[in-house]
Amino acid sequence: MKNVRFDEKGLIPAIVQDADTSEVLMLAYMNEEALRRTLSSGEAWFYSRSRKKLWHKGETSGNRIKVRSIWKDCDSDTILILGQPTGPVCHTGNKTCFFEKLTEQDVEA
Amino acid sequence: MKNVRFDEKGLIPAIVQDADTSEVLMLAYMNEEALRRTLSSGEAWFYSRSRKKLWHKGETSGNRIKVRSIWKDCDSDTILILGQPTGPVCHTGNKTCFFEKLTEQDVEA
Repeated sequence: MKNVRFDEKGLIPAIVQDADTSEVLMLAYMNEEALRRTLSSGEAWFYSRSRKKLWHKGETSGNRIKVRSIWKDCDSDTILILGQPTGPVCHTGNKTCFFEKLTEQDVEA
Repeated sequence: MKNVRFDEKGLIPAIVQDADTSEVLMLAYMNEEALRRTLSSGEAWFYSRSRKKLWHKGETSGNRIKVRSIWKDCDSDTILILGQPTGPVCHTGNKTCFFEKLTEQDVEA
């Protein structure tokens, strides 16, 4: 696949941003097949690093992400998906996976 | 460092979002030291994978990122920085690194 650079594991990080609210919702990883399916289906597909398999976002929860547009960054090794989630994106039930603030206390050794 | 999970290379991906416009600006990687310096200085520090060294964003270009808040995701392996860039974030001179749209043509084998 040209024009997109996958890492040594064949993956590329994909940021998902809510196309309506602009909130950053999650970061997941795609392999070539996940990216192809995302582009052809209009819904977000990823590669689950823990389960080691393709993952159609929402296949279990029902909370899918409808893709509005896909962007790549200047060195073609990160993807940004602008999409419309059909429900909470996070497995915790939160709208976004980024719901915990990080402070200096969190990084004390 | 507890509460944050670095990968097997000691890195964690960090998304940078413009705190004012909500635009996603870039994705880079932090090691522990970069995260500590970011939290203590209030400016974004990263670890450059190509140059293999700590990288104070803007040290060459002058375009720094002033940090407003830092978030982590639900499994603590991605960071989201809400910040205020002092100039274009991208080395191409673009405001954001995500300025190229990806289409099905881009992923043809």
